[in-house]
Amino acid sequence: MDSPQDLPIFARRHLLGMAGLNYPDIETLLDRADRAVDVSRQRDKKRATLRGLTQINLFFEASTRTQASFELAGKRLGADVMNMAVASSSVKKGETLIDTAMTLNAMHPDILVIRHGAAGAAALLARKVACSVINAGDGAHEHPTQALLDALTIRRHKGRLDGLTVAICGDILHSRVARSNIILLNTMGARVRAVGPSTLMPVGIAEMGAEHHVRMADGIRDADVVMMLRLQRERKAGAFVPSVREYFRHYGLDAPTLAHARPDCLVMHPGPMNRGVEIASEIADGPQSVIEEQVEMGVAVRMAVMEALLDPRKPETPT
Amino acid sequence: MDSPQDLPIFARRHLLGMAGLNYPDIETLLDRADRAVDVSRQRDKKRATLRGLTQINLFFEASTRTQASFELAGKRLGADVMNMAVASSSVKKGETLIDTAMTLNAMHPDILVIRHGAAGAAALLARKVACSVINAGDGAHEHPTQALLDALTIRRHKGRLDGLTVAICGDILHSRVARSNIILLNTMGARVRAVGPSTLMPVGIAEMGAEHHVRMADGIRDADVVMMLRLQRERKAGAFVPSVREYFRHYGLDAPTLAHARPDCLVMHPGPMNRGVEIASEIADGPQSVIEEQVEMGVAVRMAVMEALLDPRKPETPT
Amino acid sequence: MDSPQDLPIFARRHLLGMAGLNYPDIETLLDRADRAVDVSRQRDKKRATLRGLTQINLFFEASTRTQASFELAGKRLGADVMNMAVASSSVKKGETLIDTAMTLNAMHPDILVIRHGAAGAAALLARKVACSVINAGDGAHEHPTQALLDALTIRRHKGRLDGLTVAICGDILHSRVARSNIILLNTMGARVRAVGPSTLMPVGIAEMGAEHHVRMADGIRDADVVMMLRLQRERKAGAFVPSVREYFRHYGLDAPTLAHARPDCLVMHPGPMNRGVEIASEIADGPQSVIEEQVEMGVAVRMAVMEALLDPRKPETPT
Repeated sequence: MDSPQDLPIFARRHLLGMAGLNYPDIETLLDRADRAVDVSRQRDKKRATLRGLTQINLFFEASTRTQASFELAGKRLGADVMNMAVASSSVKKGETLIDTAMTLNAMHPDILVIRHGAAGAAALLARKVACSVINAGDGAHEHPTQALLDALTIRRHKGRLDGLTVAICGDILHSRVARSNIILLNTMGARVRAVGPSTLMPVGIAEMGAEHHVRMADGIRDADVVMMLRLQRERKAGAFVPSVREYFRHYGLDAPTLAHARPDCLVMHPGPMNRGVEIASEIADGPQSVIEEQVEMGVAVRMAVMEALLDPRKPETPT
Repeated sequence: MDSPQDLPIFARRHLLGMAGLNYPDIETLLDRADRAVDVSRQRDKKRATLRGLTQINLFFEASTRTQASFELAGKRLGADVMNMAVASSSVKKGETLIDTAMTLNAMHPDILVIRHGAAGAAALLARKVACSVINAGDGAHEHPTQALLDALTIRRHKGRLDGLTVAICGDILHSRVARSNIILLNTMGARVRAVGPSTLMPVGIAEMGAEHHVRMADGIRDADVVMMLRLQRERKAGAFVPSVREYFRHYGLDAPTLAHARPDCLVMHPGPMNRGVEIASEIADGPQSVIEEQVEMGVAVRMAVMEALLDPRKPETPT
Repeated sequence: MDSPQDLPIFARRHLLGMAGLNYPDIETLLDRADRAVDVSRQRDKKRATLRGLTQINLFFEASTRTQASFELAGKRLGADVMNMAVASSSVKKGETLIDTAMTLNAMHPDILVIRHGAAGAAALLARKVACSVINAGDGAHEHPTQALLDALTIRRHKGRLDGLTVAICGDILHSRVARSNIILLNTMGARVRAVGPSTLMPVGIAEMGAEHHVRMADGIRDADVVMMLRLQRERKAGAFVPSVREYFRHYGLDAPTLAHARPDCLVMHPGPMNRGVEIASEIADGPQSVIEEQVEMGVAVRMAVMEALLDPRKPETPT
């Protein structure tokens, strides 16, 4: 595997998931990200931290938002950034991912940011290349920088993560965002509820560290944070596919539903939103929404992760 | 709205159209662009004016030429430039443009260059974001940097704009290029003729400041400048759609037709050209053509606009 | 034509093919590339050689690998790099290539890297623009940087090129890679064998400087290097189209076939590979394979070529 589990984050080479990161690792990353927020708020956003280094964004699934966030993070740190969009259709799994990896590896990148439709793709890549690999989403497995940016957003509003009640609502089964968040929030001492129909729940959700609620009213009662997931209508085949109207009635977030949560409950969404499907527009644009702030935190978190993995002053990394 | 109409260009944040710019504003921009021409003609084309700043090119309609021009202008001024091509098909109008805008805004760009199929898209964006917005074409509304580059090209050849006779020929109705040019040329004291069939003329063309001519021979008689527009066959549905051959016979520019203009008349085209449709190849490549020079002026004008809007030495901009 | 044939490479403006380059030219480029290899192996890969210069990658055919290689080479040398992907479908040949060229030329690039489906496209472009043109593949004509990177890879392993026996295997007829390699290897004093069925051999292969062998066993006997070509199933129409299985049996490289070559024979492939079609996986990943190293040499060779053509210290270039 990539790095021994007992190494602190600064002694590692890759960020493949939240699994394996402990409390101090996450605190360290969030502290660093807190400082990175200010970089993007200044007129001169350019830093020299990664000057002379090469970052390649290798996206097998299109994602305007996440790719843009990584691209800006890298450029602001001074790296040379190259985007490689790989049409999923033209790629056969496994072997071709490895050939692509080996080709890129031979070009001596320092950071490979990968998004891929298959769970485990980032870890597979990490075993084959000489550079740092950051998982930007691999199938239904993990999306660690999303969990970190969510945590940063919460911590900046609530001052802490431990002791909070966070309700994650929607299609938990297919969501790498949910999975990474459940791991991180458990590590940090928050209480997690997974809200959605049983057909959209993974087996063993309790063992993952989340309390399953079928009804929204129960699931978000007295919650400090509500995270709505995107209903990925394109992904499911033959599974529970409700009509949009039906879905919104049971699992959409509108004002009456949100009233069950604490009055200062934060409303989050990883984007892009389906307004009127999983979230009502008045909630998305309302005073409790921190959805835009999540995007801002995304750039900061990615800067922090790249700095942590590539800072020249960190001790030598094991292979 | 974006900026009070009575502020000079350097005190504004956005360039949404030629409407609202006065004579000194335009002179200032053209003077600055004149100096920017030399930057691109040198071996070292890199300036530090926008160093540390982030420019995002947000193109909802594909445009290789205009996007490349903005990209080079930004890079030569030292900005970090990110291109975001957004497939029009996947975008529902209005709400989604705003969601995209808010997402990008949260990433703290300094300049958003937008091209969109809907008139008013740039102004809508400008009301929602904290950064400078430059309109790179919004529907049939405006394309201000095109009008500025046309004006710069003319002024460098003729020494002035006021008093000149400029004939704009073709599909005026659907052309943002024509619209921005008519506004600019009127502001600068030129006489404008709009040449084309009545079906391709906007209602109230006289009030816009252009004299309508149906026949090419009349329209370009003794003109100092002839601007040919691209026949956008893909855009019109059910409107006047002549055969290409028929169109060329009546509204194409060939040597006999051009003979009606002044002997030193400049021939212009915003590109890309349909050779043999609106312009004959021997004219496009002939001694009176300044079509390539327009492209060169395009980079210079975009550098000048970005400098004018973002120069750190300019007074504080109102919101 | 672009440059007189008797000028050394440093006095030329373009690299359009291996034809016309002599022994010292190629030695000079390989020596320079040898030094460039080290740049990409260091943490700080950024050089200032092309700082302030603009490189445009104009790809009419998609090529992730070659475009990435040129992009990284340019960025590491400090150039501003702009990619322009031009969908072949939207491009009519000849005239439109020229219009595109003139448009780009007006934006004052310093280097145009072009890939195009038509033989001669790069030379045509070179006659029209004021900047350096590098041919990144034009139809079945030439792909000079591929031949140079192959030569560099061989020379680093064998210490020389002259006197070596190199077998190029597969579809020689449609391969610009084969063509450029045959020219280079002849210039450098290597013996070249072209291995493949007669239907995939160009007329006059002997005059080109290669010995034709129909059978793999004969063609690679005692060879120092075996270059496998990609079977481009998408390109051929009505020509010799064997089943993949049939092709592999006769012309695929597996262990028993490779046993005919010298024990220290290098195995090369320009990529992307069709594993199990022209090459067996155990050979592609085996100890004699230098396929990944070819990719690494690709970046170095492109850096060397751009430096050679654009070094400010070289004598004035003729037009």
